[in-house]
Parts: sequence; C-alpha cells; structure tokens
Amino acid sequence: MSDRIHQTTGLRTEVRQDGHLQLSLETSEIERPAPDEIIVEMAAAPLHPADISLLLGPADLSSTVAIGHGVQRTLSATIAPERMAGLATRVGKSLSVGNEGSGVVVEAGQAQKHLVGKNVAVMGGGMLTQYRKVPISDALPLPDGVPVTSGAAVLINPLTALAMLETMRDEGHTALVHTAAASSLGQMLNRICLEDGVGLVNVVRRPEQAQMLRQQGARHVCDSSSPDFVAELSALIAETGATLAFDAVSGGSLASQILAAMERNALASLHGYSRYGSKVRKQIYFYGGMDSRPTELNLWAYGMTWSAGSWLIFDQLPQMAPERSVSLRERISRDMLTTFACDFAGELSLSELLDPENLKRIAARSTGQKYLINPSIGLER
Amino acid sequence: MSDRIHQTTGLRTEVRQDGHLQLSLETSEIERPAPDEIIVEMAAAPLHPADISLLLGPADLSSTVAIGHGVQRTLSATIAPERMAGLATRVGKSLSVGNEGSGVVVEAGQAQKHLVGKNVAVMGGGMLTQYRKVPISDALPLPDGVPVTSGAAVLINPLTALAMLETMRDEGHTALVHTAAASSLGQMLNRICLEDGVGLVNVVRRPEQAQMLRQQGARHVCDSSSPDFVAELSALIAETGATLAFDAVSGGSLASQILAAMERNALASLHGYSRYGSKVRKQIYFYGGMDSRPTELNLWAYGMTWSAGSWLIFDQLPQMAPERSVSLRERISRDMLTTFACDFAGELSLSELLDPENLKRIAARSTGQKYLINPSIGLER
Repeated sequence: MSDRIHQTTGLRTEVRQDGHLQLSLETSEIERPAPDEIIVEMAAAPLHPADISLLLGPADLSSTVAIGHGVQRTLSATIAPERMAGLATRVGKSLSVGNEGSGVVVEAGQAQKHLVGKNVAVMGGGMLTQYRKVPISDALPLPDGVPVTSGAAVLINPLTALAMLETMRDEGHTALVHTAAASSLGQMLNRICLEDGVGLVNVVRRPEQAQMLRQQGARHVCDSSSPDFVAELSALIAETGATLAFDAVSGGSLASQILAAMERNALASLHGYSRYGSKVRKQIYFYGGMDSRPTELNLWAYGMTWSAGSWLIFDQLPQMAPERSVSLRERISRDMLTTFACDFAGELSLSELLDPENLKRIAARSTGQKYLINPSIGLER
Repeated sequence: MSDRIHQTTGLRTEVRQDGHLQLSLETSEIERPAPDEIIVEMAAAPLHPADISLLLGPADLSSTVAIGHGVQRTLSATIAPERMAGLATRVGKSLSVGNEGSGVVVEAGQAQKHLVGKNVAVMGGGMLTQYRKVPISDALPLPDGVPVTSGAAVLINPLTALAMLETMRDEGHTALVHTAAASSLGQMLNRICLEDGVGLVNVVRRPEQAQMLRQQGARHVCDSSSPDFVAELSALIAETGATLAFDAVSGGSLASQILAAMERNALASLHGYSRYGSKVRKQIYFYGGMDSRPTELNLWAYGMTWSAGSWLIFDQLPQMAPERSVSLRERISRDMLTTFACDFAGELSLSELLDPENLKRIAARSTGQKYLINPSIGLER
C-alpha cells in the first residue's frame, strides 16, 4: 500500500464570474506522507453550518441544475447579482469543503507507522474527499470501542467549547454568556460548564429550545423571543456574574443587549458616580454570523471598559500552550461518547449530496439536524 | 500660609430626580497636603467637550432659569424625560467639573516645598474651583517663560495624543486613522505624527476642516461628507498601511467603513482565498461619542481578525511604564508652546459661566472654539 500514490475524489465548490455556484467532484493525487503525516481513508464528515455556508454560499437552490452522472455530475445554481460583491475574493477559485471528519489510517510517515489501520478523527479543511493527508497535530486517534462515525465531529465543536473556557480563564472572567445556545456546540458547552461548575447564560431564540436545554440540566436559560428578554437576561447575568460572551448570532442588537446588561450589573455594586462607567472589563466575541443584519452597538450603555471582536478556533489552537492542548484532547478522548457526542440526522454519499433535493434539505439546516457524509462510498464512475 | 486650611469655591453640576439640571457654586474646605501633594490656586481651566458634556448633560438650555446672584447663583434647566433613564447613575449626585487646568502652587507637602510659588499644570477632575489639591503625579511644572494660561490644557490632549502612539507601537501597528481629526486633539496628533514620521489618516467631516489640516501639513486627509469618501479613505489606508483607528465619532457606520477599508487593503496582498479573511489584525478604539446614533458594524466585511473597544486616557496612564510616562512629560514640557499649544476663544470667570447666554455659546462648541475659565476671579459674595 505504501508503494502507490493515492488518488482521491473530493467535492469542490466554486463561485463563477458569471454569477453561478458550481459544485463538482474532482480527482487529484496525494503525495507520500512526511514523517509526521498520515493518510486517512475518510469514512465520515459532518456538515457543520460553516461547511454548508462555504459549500452553498448565497446560491438560490431553487435554481439548481444538474448535469452528468456519477463522478462527472456537476450542479449549478444562480447567485443573486447583489450578493456577488461580497464573494469577490472567492470568485474563480475551486475550493475543497469539510472542516473535519474521521476515517482509517491507510498510510503513515515514518514517525506514525503505529497508527496504520487505526481509526482517527482529523481536521484541517477539505475533508469531503476519499483520502486526506494531514499532519499528526490535526489528528486524534479514536479510543478502542468508539465507532468511526462517532469520531466524525469530535474535534471542531469540542475544541471550540473547551477553548472558549480557556479564553474565559485566561482573561480573568468566571462565567459566560453563549448565544445560539441550542446548537450542537451550545448543548456541548452546557454539558462542559455543568461538569466544571462554570456559570453559563444560555441565550436561545425559541421557547422549545429553552425547554430542551433545561431538560439537559441547563441552569440559566433565556429566550430572546420573550417579551421580557432584557429583564430575564439581566437577571441571569447578575446571578452568574458573567462578563464574557460568545456570540454566534452577531447581527442586530443582541450583542449590545448583553454588554449593557453586564454593565448594569457592574454598576449595581458601584458606589458613587463614574462618568466612564464601571471598571469591570466586559468582552464579547463574535464567532458566527447567524443573523446577517448589521450589528448595532449602543456604546453609551457600556461605559469605557469593554471590547468586542472576532474569535476563531483556528487562531486559538496554535496559540494554546502545548500542555493545555494535550489536556483538552485527553478530555475529549475520555468523554467522546458522552459529553462530546454529537447526533446526526442521516448519512449521505458524495453522489447523494449532489442531488438537488438533498441540498435543499441540508440548506434548511435546523438545530440538531446535522448530516454526515461518507466520502468513500458510492463514487461509481 | 501653611497654617490655615484653604476654603475653595467651585462649580457643581447635579441632575435632580425631578428632571432638572442644577448648576451652582459650592464652598468647601481643603485639608493640609500630604508629603507628595500640592495645593494650587487655579488660574485657568479649559472647557473640553468632555467637560461640557459633564457640565450640561442633555439639558435644554433654552429653558435655563437663573436664581440669586454672585456665589449664591444657581441655574436650573429642564431635561427631556426620555433622557433621564440614561442619567440614572448620576441622579442626585453633586459633581465637580474640569478635567485639567493650571495655576500657582500656594502650599505643598514636605517633599514638594520647592514648588511653592511655581506655575503648574494639573489634572484629575474638579478643576473649576479656586483651590485644588492634587498628588504631584497629576501635576507638571510649567517651564520658565510659559504663561500660566498657556499651561491650562497641556496634559489631557497632549498625553492622549502621545498615548495613542504608544498604543499603536505597543500593539504592533505602524500607522493609524483618526476621526474628528480637525479637533484640537486631532491637530495636535497631526503635528506629532509629522514630527515622528508616522502615517496618519485624518478623517474630517467638512471640506473646510480638510483644508485647515492640509494647511497644517497633513499628508493624508479625507472628508466623510465627500461622495467619494469610501474610495478616498481606502486609498489613504492603502498608502499608509494603517491597521489601527481612534474614533471620536463612534455613532453611525464610520467605524465599520474604516475596518472594512483596512480589510480590503489587507486582502489586496493576500494570495488565494481565505474564508476567514486576512490575518492582519485590525483594531478600532472608540474614545468619544460625537455621533449619538448606534454604531453599525458589518462584521462580514472585516474577516475574523479584528477588535473594537473603548479607549480611555485615564486607564492608559496608570498602565504606562514609568520611564515612558517621564519621557512623554519631558516632550510636552519641551514643546509646550509649539506642538502642544492650544488656542482659546475667550476667558470667563465662574460667575460669567453661570450666565445663561454664555452657557448657550459654550454648548454650541465648534472646532477650535475652546473657552478658558479662570476660577479665581470675580467670585464676589
């Protein structure tokens, strides 16, 4: 096996100059692994919201046209002209898709030979392909007894949730707010915070999401669709003392409501008057953009000790102290089938993914409905 | 002189529960100075925008009523009911006014006796009063030959402008954007950047302000009222490589336009496609709120490497390394009558300040029209 170069067929997405999105399968070759690299035959890759957004962009799926069959199939869908400006930097570039996945190691560099035949979880982009070469630092061997599909999504969300708590501790906060808290990531963060005794204010957008999180043991839940949302949010922030928020919604005024509630809580224990507000540091990190409206901040409501900015797991991981990184991975390995488990709505091959009806189903992603792709089956030529 | 306790009469501003702003003069006593403290007989204190905003709040000055005469005079003006919520934390608190000023040292603690009789600049709030006690760390002796009124505004704006460049260097930026760049502070920052060879993009709001700054040697000026503003801003950011902005405007979409222009410039030299945008760190600091509208951020336009937050000189100074702090003060002393000079529109006593017509003139503050108050004259009983 180590004598041949692997050929791999994988999914590509491209925004064309003419205003079309094009999805296709493309075959390429993989070179021999370096000493610390492994080649994985992919068995499962989840479609996270971020993957779907890269895959489909803002294309109008009702316009999808399919041409050809099997690995020759391409799908084409139109993109509204006014959305093209925001896509300028990706026009004409054929991009691979899939942040993470799992599979079996079929070849390994000199230093990783012991992994051949083992199941591993991997991350690093371009996972919707038959074979994928990664450095060992982007892989996590699955413990014995963990089915390969159960390892498909054990890196991005688990590391994101754990890294959020690392950021919290590094920056001196003791509790946090999370928006879109009913997401897979949100449910996981809730489990971790319960285990670690960390105060977590879960902000959801519908009553049934609040109920679901409460059934999962969440102690502090509020629903932004409630008429009393601001009061409820404020009370939970006061209860937990949260001064940090991770916001996957971003658009609209939710971020501003959170910062203002934090400031009101800080001012409640302030004696006298400070025209610059409290000295309590308030931080909000945007890590997603579920609401595409502009973000509206009412700066006068937070005083002069606050900060807002982007937070990206792929920037956090390289900055983490190596011993912390090892410790987080050990925790994920230990609790892979419990705390860090993820449910999937169904499994598709790459060919099935290129079915316009399946694409529509995937695009209508709703909480807890995550699809798993098996890139190594059904690629008849 | 060192035997008696000083009595001082100073200006107070209070928002009353009943929805009125009340301005009055109040006499209080000053205790003996500690070893490192000095007592200054105030000769001049500028009315900066921040002072005016604390003094007048959102009061409707057309409703001003004056009662009494001399030091007994009080002024009262109504505040619109909908503005009272934002003032909750200052209601019922009688506040002193005046961030900085200058005067002569009339008494000093054991360690500072050598300063008695000397002119000093001082900061620390409550400067609109006859006598003010401050720790020596809040004072800067005026060089020989500098008139006391020329030392009235040599701390806050000069230290703010210099500290902005310290922040720039500390955070690894090499050029910066400044909004409301025609302000006294903005003109000073322009002079400093020209001296230091630092790229500065001056953003102003009217053509005549752009012209004024250009006459003062500014190399990079753009006017947000121009129909081509975004293109002009982008070109100047590309020319200077600015990745940091200090924003005194805050409201509206100016901050977002600046961050987006920085990101476009960073992307221009990026090869390939990065869905998370450039890795160039973009930072905007809000330090004023000249535009009271909400701040609108279009997060999708900056990628995932940006941050926004508040920046307050009074938080920066205590964090500065002592040798840097000394070096900035030496520079201010050296160039007090040139780089750090400030023009004033006129001088008033505290009694004259409590004249409704003068208040209106002050509230209509326009660029370069800064009033100076002499707190030690005209306080007939």
